Amino acid sequence: MRAVVACSLGVHMFMRPANLRLPRAAMVFRSAATSVAPPRSPHIAGFMRRVEACNNGLELASRAKPFVVPGVGELGVVLPEAAAVLAEFPTVFRVDDCAVELIAGGDSVEARSNAVAEVLRQLRRDGRVPMLAGWRGEGWPVKASFDSPAELVMERAAAPLFGVAGFGCHINGLVTCDGAASAGSRPSHLWVARRAATKQTWPGKLDHVVAGGLAHGERPWDNVLKECDEEASVPRALAERTRPTGMIEYFGRDETGWGTKRDVILCYDLHLPPDFVPVARDGEVESFALWEMRDVIKSLVAESDEWKPNVALVIIDMLVRHGFVAPEEAGYIDLVRSLRR
Amino acid sequence: MRAVVACSLGVHMFMRPANLRLPRAAMVFRSAATSVAPPRSPHIAGFMRRVEACNNGLELASRAKPFVVPGVGELGVVLPEAAAVLAEFPTVFRVDDCAVELIAGGDSVEARSNAVAEVLRQLRRDGRVPMLAGWRGEGWPVKASFDSPAELVMERAAAPLFGVAGFGCHINGLVTCDGAASAGSRPSHLWVARRAATKQTWPGKLDHVVAGGLAHGERPWDNVLKECDEEASVPRALAERTRPTGMIEYFGRDETGWGTKRDVILCYDLHLPPDFVPVARDGEVESFALWEMRDVIKSLVAESDEWKPNVALVIIDMLVRHGFVAPEEAGYIDLVRSLRR
Repeated sequence: MRAVVACSLGVHMFMRPANLRLPRAAMVFRSAATSVAPPRSPHIAGFMRRVEACNNGLELASRAKPFVVPGVGELGVVLPEAAAVLAEFPTVFRVDDCAVELIAGGDSVEARSNAVAEVLRQLRRDGRVPMLAGWRGEGWPVKASFDSPAELVMERAAAPLFGVAGFGCHINGLVTCDGAASAGSRPSHLWVARRAATKQTWPGKLDHVVAGGLAHGERPWDNVLKECDEEASVPRALAERTRPTGMIEYFGRDETGWGTKRDVILCYDLHLPPDFVPVARDGEVESFALWEMRDVIKSLVAESDEWKPNVALVIIDMLVRHGFVAPEEAGYIDLVRSLRR
Repeated sequence: MRAVVACSLGVHMFMRPANLRLPRAAMVFRSAATSVAPPRSPHIAGFMRRVEACNNGLELASRAKPFVVPGVGELGVVLPEAAAVLAEFPTVFRVDDCAVELIAGGDSVEARSNAVAEVLRQLRRDGRVPMLAGWRGEGWPVKASFDSPAELVMERAAAPLFGVAGFGCHINGLVTCDGAASAGSRPSHLWVARRAATKQTWPGKLDHVVAGGLAHGERPWDNVLKECDEEASVPRALAERTRPTGMIEYFGRDETGWGTKRDVILCYDLHLPPDFVPVARDGEVESFALWEMRDVIKSLVAESDEWKPNVALVIIDMLVRHGFVAPEEAGYIDLVRSLRR
């Protein structure tokens, strides 16, 4: 079964062309390519398909141009098709082989934002950039890191066009249907929402009980409390039991093909009492259903397109944290690692 | 406060010399260097010091040579000082500018292991390689990945000399001292062990209630059950409540300076009843103490050297998963990301 590789290091190196462009510091961490590892367990393989459906941007990154704000740095990436369109606005963007640079607005966040907004309004009118059909009218902060101030604010629907980082909060609505449950008991059920058919993004798909993107100026905890109320009518006292549990991240293709998503999702668990039933209030959710955890797992492992893609990753992270996946399953470490780039 | 950078992209690129050697695919993910982010919160800064104390190998990796087994691939890294010593055994290792290659033993795991063992026995006798003073007499599997078969087996104490991946299981012994605790209640206490003064590694340091390296042929779950019994006298029925929760990993300097540690630690939580008291059995632990979680946090944030370094990372991961750290604390995402390389 083992691939036969000549013993000379030269030949050995030749077998790993993917390494050739990497400096040694990166190279030495790569697993040996020719050693035989067992195939991933069916569960892990299914989960990895979900991760890879979101985290598929590596090839895109090699084609994309950095989106640069002078004096700040790289804040995103722009695909060649999008760069060609932005190049038609030479008073706002300087586009060359190396980068897409925002040259309008100087040091002013407001002036930068206004200059970009005017371009986006024109592009939306022209109808040439498909993702702008999903215009939300929400300001999206463009930041160098989560903790940094916004360097400009742009329409949320345009964020993938510039490949800027996006941040959101997702809440696993967990239930432990076991009279003898105590601290540390594993949840048995997950509340699952079906998105309204009228949602601009991912209509009709399965979602968390509560989840939302972080708009400009919004703090995660405020977002959690607000969305608990608006999306699922979770009373404030119950919503305050929500707990942060970490984050997942991915970099992948935007569904329109015009951009990329570089998202960090803050993950939360909310253990709900068995008699609580969420109620949709803001029209974003069609219905809620309480799923047994084994059905959640079965559905994620299956090759269905029922789930909003990034929701699957947050649930997989939850399944890992609560011990629904075991290190004895081949591929476990790759899976856990893959949830953070 | 903002650093002034000329607007031309050429100058901008020049400001980031660290990026210059990276291919674009890696480059585009880097945060902007010149943007102003707030300083990390004191908690996060303290936790990051713990992570960086373990994960400090990047500079070493640039100096190290890959440890190559022909027909298998790179299985580790060897520092220049160690490579020079191994070069004195030219029938076993071929050492050149590019790599340290195991040339003895052919395709046989046993023959490879015997050849390396003979070299290590000589080096131990000579007393030239300090880390071999900690000889354990335990076989350590050298694998291309966690799921792969062992390509050779070597003395555990020598693993850092070859910078091969190490795997272990650490258990957070959690207690929820709250009569009204239910599923999802946050643990209030952590059992902390003080390592015996006679331990070969990290004598007298603070440790998990149960933790162990994975020896050759040992499965994680078997290790968990065995160590629960041997290290803390946890009855089998209680030990079986232990749950996997993910993993942390780091790459750093070995404490002797002769090698590197590339460890993956499988993390587990065990929620213990408030009336359970662990009892040391195998002489590896001097004493156990039940710490309030706030004291654990305070101790980890402080610049003390009381903790076995990698134990701190597993506890920090637990604190993140149970919501003892909030995304509102500056540096949260960097911290969470840093726990997996």
